[in-house]
Amino acid sequence: MRIEDLQSVAQQLFDAVRRLSDDGVGVTRASYGAGESAAADFLRAFAEQEGLEVSLDRAANMIFSLPGAGTAAGVWIGSHLDSVPQGGNYDGLAGVVAGLLCLMKQRRSGRATTAPLRVIGFRGEESAWFGKAYMGSGALFGKLTPEDLELRQRSTRQTLAECMNAAGADVDAIRAQVQLLDQGQVSAYLELHIEQGPVMVARELPVAVVSGIRGNVRHNQVVCTGEAGHSGVVPRWLRRDAMFAVADLIVRLDGHWRVLLERGTDLVVTTGVVATDPAEHSISRIPGRVSFSFEARSRSRDTLEAFYQLMRAECDAISRERQVGFEFDRRQLSDPAQMDPALCVVLADACRQRGITHDLIPSGAGHDASLFANAGLPSGMLFIRNQNGSHNPDEAMEISDFMLGVQVLDDAVEKLCTTVGEPPIS
Amino acid sequence: MRIEDLQSVAQQLFDAVRRLSDDGVGVTRASYGAGESAAADFLRAFAEQEGLEVSLDRAANMIFSLPGAGTAAGVWIGSHLDSVPQGGNYDGLAGVVAGLLCLMKQRRSGRATTAPLRVIGFRGEESAWFGKAYMGSGALFGKLTPEDLELRQRSTRQTLAECMNAAGADVDAIRAQVQLLDQGQVSAYLELHIEQGPVMVARELPVAVVSGIRGNVRHNQVVCTGEAGHSGVVPRWLRRDAMFAVADLIVRLDGHWRVLLERGTDLVVTTGVVATDPAEHSISRIPGRVSFSFEARSRSRDTLEAFYQLMRAECDAISRERQVGFEFDRRQLSDPAQMDPALCVVLADACRQRGITHDLIPSGAGHDASLFANAGLPSGMLFIRNQNGSHNPDEAMEISDFMLGVQVLDDAVEKLCTTVGEPPIS
Repeated sequence: MRIEDLQSVAQQLFDAVRRLSDDGVGVTRASYGAGESAAADFLRAFAEQEGLEVSLDRAANMIFSLPGAGTAAGVWIGSHLDSVPQGGNYDGLAGVVAGLLCLMKQRRSGRATTAPLRVIGFRGEESAWFGKAYMGSGALFGKLTPEDLELRQRSTRQTLAECMNAAGADVDAIRAQVQLLDQGQVSAYLELHIEQGPVMVARELPVAVVSGIRGNVRHNQVVCTGEAGHSGVVPRWLRRDAMFAVADLIVRLDGHWRVLLERGTDLVVTTGVVATDPAEHSISRIPGRVSFSFEARSRSRDTLEAFYQLMRAECDAISRERQVGFEFDRRQLSDPAQMDPALCVVLADACRQRGITHDLIPSGAGHDASLFANAGLPSGMLFIRNQNGSHNPDEAMEISDFMLGVQVLDDAVEKLCTTVGEPPIS
Repeated sequence: MRIEDLQSVAQQLFDAVRRLSDDGVGVTRASYGAGESAAADFLRAFAEQEGLEVSLDRAANMIFSLPGAGTAAGVWIGSHLDSVPQGGNYDGLAGVVAGLLCLMKQRRSGRATTAPLRVIGFRGEESAWFGKAYMGSGALFGKLTPEDLELRQRSTRQTLAECMNAAGADVDAIRAQVQLLDQGQVSAYLELHIEQGPVMVARELPVAVVSGIRGNVRHNQVVCTGEAGHSGVVPRWLRRDAMFAVADLIVRLDGHWRVLLERGTDLVVTTGVVATDPAEHSISRIPGRVSFSFEARSRSRDTLEAFYQLMRAECDAISRERQVGFEFDRRQLSDPAQMDPALCVVLADACRQRGITHDLIPSGAGHDASLFANAGLPSGMLFIRNQNGSHNPDEAMEISDFMLGVQVLDDAVEKLCTTVGEPPIS
């Protein structure tokens, strides 16, 4: 059988999971929440019916394989099961379905690769829920800290520890930052993901090979504190307006960003969540308290660090000039990651041999693959063209583009899994 | 009897109304809501017990007088009964209590002024509830529009029309913008109010005479719309970040403000309520929608108009530069007001004759007095020193300062009410 024959199965899987997590606007699959669990349960039942073996790792991620894969080294294909609130159906799910199709092909054709293929559906990749990304993959590498485990879900206010425990994770081991993944089982990690930016649509590329992944530095919440007061009666020189201070900061950061771009620095800067304090704000009141999030992303760790220090220096300057204070929650850093050059060649060769238009492009968004890459495991990613951006209900992927990506992934697995025992790539 | 003998009555009235509207943090007397009604009901019962006549005008404001005041021209003392959410006890209430003490003195001493003194407790002065100020006094002068009546209360979402109707106002007449006040009954309007800024504390003035009242121009809500997107994947030149656009606007306005101040222009500028859209914002999402309030205040109508046009011009420029749009709700304008110079002299003379340190200062905050002044009625205001600013639970007024103000007010009433029939002041 050919993997392209599984297109209708792929479509059915996407449709079924969409229905399970439909929120009336898009899909909502909260990290360690109802929609994510429903997706995982559905895929488990489906895979078992297909004769695949399904298990949970100690971080509650779901692992699929042919029966009897044991602990042998092999290729892993992974992506995540969760979504942002009112997100799109393909962000994450596409990669898990792609992996399942590769396993199904091996199972249905009765031709398993020499080294086992494992597919992993990560829980908790999106930062939208706990203010922290890569929770499921991070836990595998001992990267979740005790503080992370105390983060609270944006709606339910349950801690991450409670939610991971409910999903079946070994929270004590995670808290102790034990390495839960036996890296000896991973000869290579591959991830297929929709592109989340506008590049591939503009350049008419159905498939792309990812060269590297931007890292980021973040504060979920910075609080600027000035002094509230009646808007009519406090003259400018006596004001300590927290909103004017935050606006000043944003405009300064924007100015630095513009200059850095002109020098060729890779950087994006975002303040996604900004608000005066709803408990006390009003039209006729000088804002005494403004909270905001800060995020910078770059392919360079040095750029992240330098821009972060610049931001802190501007906060200090504004504190002095405007008589306000800035309080920062815990700084979060996700390192940039390079994809393995040899794996990039394998993926690009597969595209070429199938006559698929492709190119090498960087990923602006973060992915679980960065955890594998930064743990020293050879990692590669494929992007699939996707309309209307991502993290919104309108994201759209053509099933035909997806199947081209699955084809390339399957070809790469075939190539890599017959060379196991030696390093997969020279 | 002397009016200073009523200090303990004043304290009891303040304490009783505070208890009725205590919210655990400060006091909450929502415009046309429970706390305001409780204060009005309490004061009505108290006044009736004191032998005063109490009635509602057609806008549901409460009017107190000696029995038999009829429709003769006389002096009015007024202020408002409502508060901001979690506000202080004296903002508004002080002026109503001051008027009641003047009436009580006349009643208890059996010596009424030739021309009647009326005290009016306005409902709905604070803009915090419906996004519109001076609703009770505005209605009296036919200044509430049909659109105003459709404004909704911030918590209950009831319309202003519904709430005014429930309080006993003649909403049909108000909607028709009928002048409900017989201006012939008003020879002068006086208002005592706590100062809401820091000037009198700094200058050690227990009492001040108000020279004029800043007007304001406002939008309760401006919405800046850009395009949401994944924070990692959209380069700066393709971004339409609504938050960066609003920050840019605020910083530009701040720059213009600084320049105008250096030219001696009277101006304050505030964006009291700013927020990314809670339904869709997240740390890793470029804000596609930011709402904010805009307010400028000045003693000059021309300054308000010029600064407003400058703001709109900057919005246009930012729209072009940053590919965003700005949508404005209805513009609201409250005219600046001049206090009557002759009344200022009467009030200042009364201070001088009692040996009370005082000065002439402008009011940055708006007051019901501005409606009377702008209707061509001679109006005057007294400020009482007040610690810790206003529109917060910590506002604090010394009862001794208050009684000095009441003394001055009573002296002014005595002087003005014996000269009625002729213009009260030459």
